[in-house]
Amino acid sequence: MPAVSRVLVNGMAATTVSAFDRGLSYGDGLFETIRFVVGRAPLWERHMQRLGEGCLRLRLPVPEPAQLLGEAIAAAEGLTHAVVRITLTRGVGERGYAPPPSPCTTRIVAAFEAPPMAGEGYAIGVRVRWCALRLAVQPQLAGMKHLNRLEQVMARAEWNDPAIAEGLLCDTDGGVVSATMANLFALIDGDLVTPSVERGGVAGVARAEVLAARAGGRVARITPEELERASEVFLTSAVRGILPVQAVGDTVYVPGPVTRALQQHWRGLGFPMEQA
Amino acid sequence: MPAVSRVLVNGMAATTVSAFDRGLSYGDGLFETIRFVVGRAPLWERHMQRLGEGCLRLRLPVPEPAQLLGEAIAAAEGLTHAVVRITLTRGVGERGYAPPPSPCTTRIVAAFEAPPMAGEGYAIGVRVRWCALRLAVQPQLAGMKHLNRLEQVMARAEWNDPAIAEGLLCDTDGGVVSATMANLFALIDGDLVTPSVERGGVAGVARAEVLAARAGGRVARITPEELERASEVFLTSAVRGILPVQAVGDTVYVPGPVTRALQQHWRGLGFPMEQA
Repeated sequence: MPAVSRVLVNGMAATTVSAFDRGLSYGDGLFETIRFVVGRAPLWERHMQRLGEGCLRLRLPVPEPAQLLGEAIAAAEGLTHAVVRITLTRGVGERGYAPPPSPCTTRIVAAFEAPPMAGEGYAIGVRVRWCALRLAVQPQLAGMKHLNRLEQVMARAEWNDPAIAEGLLCDTDGGVVSATMANLFALIDGDLVTPSVERGGVAGVARAEVLAARAGGRVARITPEELERASEVFLTSAVRGILPVQAVGDTVYVPGPVTRALQQHWRGLGFPMEQA
Repeated sequence: MPAVSRVLVNGMAATTVSAFDRGLSYGDGLFETIRFVVGRAPLWERHMQRLGEGCLRLRLPVPEPAQLLGEAIAAAEGLTHAVVRITLTRGVGERGYAPPPSPCTTRIVAAFEAPPMAGEGYAIGVRVRWCALRLAVQPQLAGMKHLNRLEQVMARAEWNDPAIAEGLLCDTDGGVVSATMANLFALIDGDLVTPSVERGGVAGVARAEVLAARAGGRVARITPEELERASEVFLTSAVRGILPVQAVGDTVYVPGPVTRALQQHWRGLGFPMEQA
C-alpha cells in the first residue's frame, strides 16, 4: 500500500472496494487530485466544478461538495501538504456495460503526503521528452478526468530516466495536447497559449486558473514546430503548480517573466513555494 | 452485489480489492469473459492467447493458464452454464501513472449464471441500432480487452428499449467496428467480412473462432452503406455465441445459411443451444 494518511470509502474508514465495482470493471468513474495546505485547498471550487461537469456528462449523481470537503479534510488531517484523491465510480453493478438506472456511487477519498512544490525544477525548470504514443481523439470523453487512463500509463512507461520529469503527448492529428499528468502552456510569438481539450486531454484545474488569471492567455492548436520556437514553456498541475520547462528533448528554454508571474500568482493563492 | 456464484481474488475467496488497485485508479488491466458448460470452456485456449498477448502489450506478467483454469472451474462450480470473468490488473501502486517496475498483479476470478444461448434471438435474430458515439482510433490499445471501457458504457447508455439487443459502433473515420459487447460479421456480395481491430475494437475470441472456422471469412473495412446491402449480418460473442441480426434500425435481414452453419459449428464446439 502506498504511503497514505487515511482513506474513506463512502465516508467510512476502509481500504477496499467491491471486486464488482464498475470503476474497476470498466473505469466507469471520475477522479480529482487536490492539493491541500494545512487543511485548505485553494483550488477546491474549480475541482468541484470539473467533477460536477464530469458527473453530468457521465450521468452520475453529483456528489455534495460539502460532504466531500469534510471527508477530504478528515483524510488529510495531520498532513501539512497533502494530495487528496477523490474517486467517484458508478458503484457496484450487474455484469454488462449498461449503467444501472439508479447508480449507488462509490466515493473514495484518500490523502497522501504531497510532493514538495519547491526545488530545482521550480527554479530552473524540468526536462521533458516527446512520447511516441499518440492520444486518441474522443470528444465524448475529452476534458473529463475519468478513470480510463491506459494511454497515460503506456505513455509514462516509455521512459524511466529519473532526470526526465514528464512526457509530452500529441494526438493522432499531430497537435500537442498535454504532458502525461499536467497541462502545457507556451509563449509563442508573445501569445500565451494552451491546447484545446475539446478532442482529447483533461480540462486541468490549474490550466483553468492560469487562463482566468492572465489576461491574454488563450486556447489554440500548438504543433511541435511551434513549440520549438516558444520563448517560455511551462506545465500546470493542481498537485505540482507551475513548473517551468527547461528542455523538450534537445530544445532548450529559459523560464521567463510570464512563468515567474504565474508562480507568484500560485503563491498568492496560498500555495507556499518553499526553497528545497 | 450481482448474482454470482463465487469470487476468488489472487486465489482466495474474497469479494473486495484494495482501494489503491491500479485497475480501479486507471483501468490498468485486462479482462476475459469466458463461457463454461459443465466445467468446460470450449474457447479457453483462445481466451488465454488473447490475455497473454494483452499482457505482453501492457507489460504485465503473463498469468499461468493452468492456475487460472483451476480458479475458473472452482468459481463456476455448481453452475451448468457459467460466465467466468477473469480480471487481471497491475495491482496496487503508488500514486502516479508510472507502472511499478515489478508489478504484483491482482487476479479476480468471478463466476456468474450464464444467459441462455437459446430463444427467439437465436432463431429469428435480434434488433440492433446505430450508436451516435464514435469510437476513438487508438492503435496502441486496439484489439485488447482492457479495462478502459467508458466508450462502451456511454454507447450502451444511449438506449434502454429492451427490444433493442445491441448498438453498432463506427469509429471516428466512419467505418463500422463492432457492437458494444460483440463483434460483427456481414455477408456482403457473397463475402463474409468483419472489421479490422487494428485501430479500435476488441479482438473477439468468438470472432477469431469464426475466422478460423470458415474458409473465406476475411477482415475488411465495412461502411454503414455496405452493411445495408449485406445478405446476412450476425454478432459474435464468447458469451452469447452466434446471434443473427434481424434489423439494424430500419434495415431488415433474414438469418441465412452462413449464419446457420456457424450456429451449427458452435454446437459442435460444445455449446448446446437449447430451445427456450
